[in-house]
This record gives sequence, C-alpha cells and structure tokens, in this order.
Amino acid sequence: MTGRQEGLIVELEYILPGDIEKRSFEIIDAELEQRGIHLPKEQRDVTMRVIHTSADFDYAKTMTYSKHAVETARKLIREGADVVTDTNMALAGINKKKLAEFGGQAHCFMAEEEIAREAKKRQLTRAAVSMEHAARIPKPVIFAIGNAPTALVSLYELMQNRGWRPAFVIGVPVGFVNVEAAKELILKTDLPYIVNRGRKGGSNVAAAIVNALLYGMI
Amino acid sequence: MTGRQEGLIVELEYILPGDIEKRSFEIIDAELEQRGIHLPKEQRDVTMRVIHTSADFDYAKTMTYSKHAVETARKLIREGADVVTDTNMALAGINKKKLAEFGGQAHCFMAEEEIAREAKKRQLTRAAVSMEHAARIPKPVIFAIGNAPTALVSLYELMQNRGWRPAFVIGVPVGFVNVEAAKELILKTDLPYIVNRGRKGGSNVAAAIVNALLYGMI
Repeated sequence: MTGRQEGLIVELEYILPGDIEKRSFEIIDAELEQRGIHLPKEQRDVTMRVIHTSADFDYAKTMTYSKHAVETARKLIREGADVVTDTNMALAGINKKKLAEFGGQAHCFMAEEEIAREAKKRQLTRAAVSMEHAARIPKPVIFAIGNAPTALVSLYELMQNRGWRPAFVIGVPVGFVNVEAAKELILKTDLPYIVNRGRKGGSNVAAAIVNALLYGMI
Repeated sequence: MTGRQEGLIVELEYILPGDIEKRSFEIIDAELEQRGIHLPKEQRDVTMRVIHTSADFDYAKTMTYSKHAVETARKLIREGADVVTDTNMALAGINKKKLAEFGGQAHCFMAEEEIAREAKKRQLTRAAVSMEHAARIPKPVIFAIGNAPTALVSLYELMQNRGWRPAFVIGVPVGFVNVEAAKELILKTDLPYIVNRGRKGGSNVAAAIVNALLYGMI
C-alpha cells in the first residue's frame, strides 16, 4: 500500500481481507468500553453489527429490544420464517443464502406494479400497501423495515383492524416525518421487536440486524 | 391513522405520500438553520439528501467537495457516464432509470465469481479487484464507494501505477479499519470528488449522493 510513503495523516494499516471485520469489532468493543457502555449479552451481536454498518455509536443508546427478542427472532429463523423488507436496498443487503439454509426467503414487494397502482388509487404509500400484501404470506414473517414509517403504521393497523399479527418486527425506518411516532406504535404492542428509537435507522441498518441474527445462529 | 386516539408521545402527522419528502427537506432545512449551518449553494442538494437518508446532521460538517464537484459530476452524467459501486445495496438504491435517461449504466462487480476467485488468489478484497475490473470500462466512470476503503486504495494505486484516472470519485465508505486513511488518499489527488471525511458513510449514503446528483439535473 502506498499510504506510508505518502505521509498520510491517518496511516493505512496492512491487514488481510479476512481479518478486517474481526479487527473492526475489536475496535467497536474497545470504544464501547471507553464510553462506559455495557451492552446486554443477548443484544451485543446485533447492536455491534449496527454500529459496524453505520460507524455511529448513538445506536448503543437507542436500540430497543423486547424481552428475549434476539432469541425469539433466531427461533423463528430456525423454523423457516421468511423476511419481508420495505426496500430493495435492504433486500440486497440481507444474506439470502444463509437465510435459505433455514428454509426462509427474503421478499420486497415495493417495486411491483400492482403495489404502485393500488397505492396511487388509495392515496397510500407503496410501503403501506406492500405490508398488506405481505400479511397474506401463509407462514411466519419477520418484518425488517428500514425506510418507511408508513410500513410500521400499516402493520399496526392490520393488527388492530384485522386481528392479524406479524411474527416479529425489526423497526428501524429513518427520517423526519412520522418516523419516531411509528416506532413508538410498535413499542406499545406486545409483539417481539427490535426497534431503534428516534430518527435514525435505514435499509443498511435493517439488513445488518437480519444478518447479525443469521450470523449468530448455532 | 390510529396514532391520535392511542395517546402517542410523538403523534403521527397526517400527510399525503407525495408530500413526505418535501416535508422532510423543510425540516432538515429548518434544523440546519437552527444549528447555524449554512451549506454552500452548490452542495446543498447532495448534503441535504445525505442527511435525509441518515437522519444524521454530522454529515453537514464532514461532507467534503472538490471545487465545482457537483457541477462536474452532473456534466459527466449528462454526457452518459456510467456509475460503478462497491455493493449491491448501493446498486439497488441508485435510480438506474433516471441514470439511463442520460445514457449511463450502473454496475457492481462484487458478486461475480471471477472477482471472488481472483481476490482469493491474490489475497486482496473483492472490492479492490472489482475496481481493477471497472477501470477497464471504456467510457467515463463515476465511482460510488459506500463500503470498502480498499476500493478507494485500489483506485489510488491504479492512478499511481498505471496512469489511469477515474472520472469522478464518490468516497463514502463506512467503518473502522483504514476508512479514514483511504478517504484522505482521495483528498490528496487532483481528482474531482465528493468524500465524507471520517468513519461515517455507507451504501445508502453512496446511493443518496448519486440520486441527489440525478434529481438536480436540468
């Protein structure tokens, strides 16, 4: 690498490709320690991978888990649950091969023409309509919402109005309009969930959570 | 929406789907003002969309542009430049339809078997090898790097060792190992660039930057 010769302010460290992730987690671990943050054991894998994907230690304070959430989600995956996301970015980021080892499939219905048509007609977001669509999947589904708060509101309304229940909700939409309120809706339910309170989140965070669940499977 | 009846701490605001983005940008604008941050006019579209995609105002301080970077990138797109990214997540997030209107294509070579094979053999990251692959595209290319610092190092080394030049670099990898140093490498060149200094960035940020460039095209 050319870094050293060129007198970089921050020097490049020589590291083998296979060791980058391990080294990253060591750094995150050390910095959590420095900040006096002790993550509950069950939540460590997931919160640390979210920090790894965002380089943002705020998540250590805002990631919120229902009781035994990680265990519950892994049990669902082990039993073949599907994953539904609200963006094709999250879908691209999820390790679908690993999920398939347990019999699960990942879906995103956002780009389907039928969804767009119905959303336009009903003045709803495509995310909201695609949740209704996903609610018809005849097996347990983990919803991984990284973008649209309206997707979370839609899940909540399906519960209230139709007595339907999602198996698990990963609620990490990002943004400025209704994002915090939509997350609080999910926190009020008795669903198993992993939610990042506040405005932050994203498709990358949603995918990171699903992958952390998968990578920690025994 | 059910929010109001349920006595939410943060209430849901009723808003038409088409107005959510506009309202989000108004909030970002107002909060930048409150924080006393005045973004240079040419950079506003891009930095604001990055904040929109991350809900993180840190980007207002760390986003770094070469002189007339936005104008330069838009000129390249207008002339049909391709975009190469280092993740399939960023590829999924880029508005490829809009890019195609100007004759450009978006690529990600990370998942190709040939890349994986060569990376393993040479003890390099797949990202580094896929940059070498992309350097053979016989037209101007905007590199949008949201994940792998080794992709930026690879671009730099191709410049040093082979006299090749990328047309433009969006350098926003995220992480803890060599991320800051790799970004500083790009800042030292005379390339046109948009870089987020520090550890933060991501595939979502890379896609947001490309989309902000596209959406601001006249």
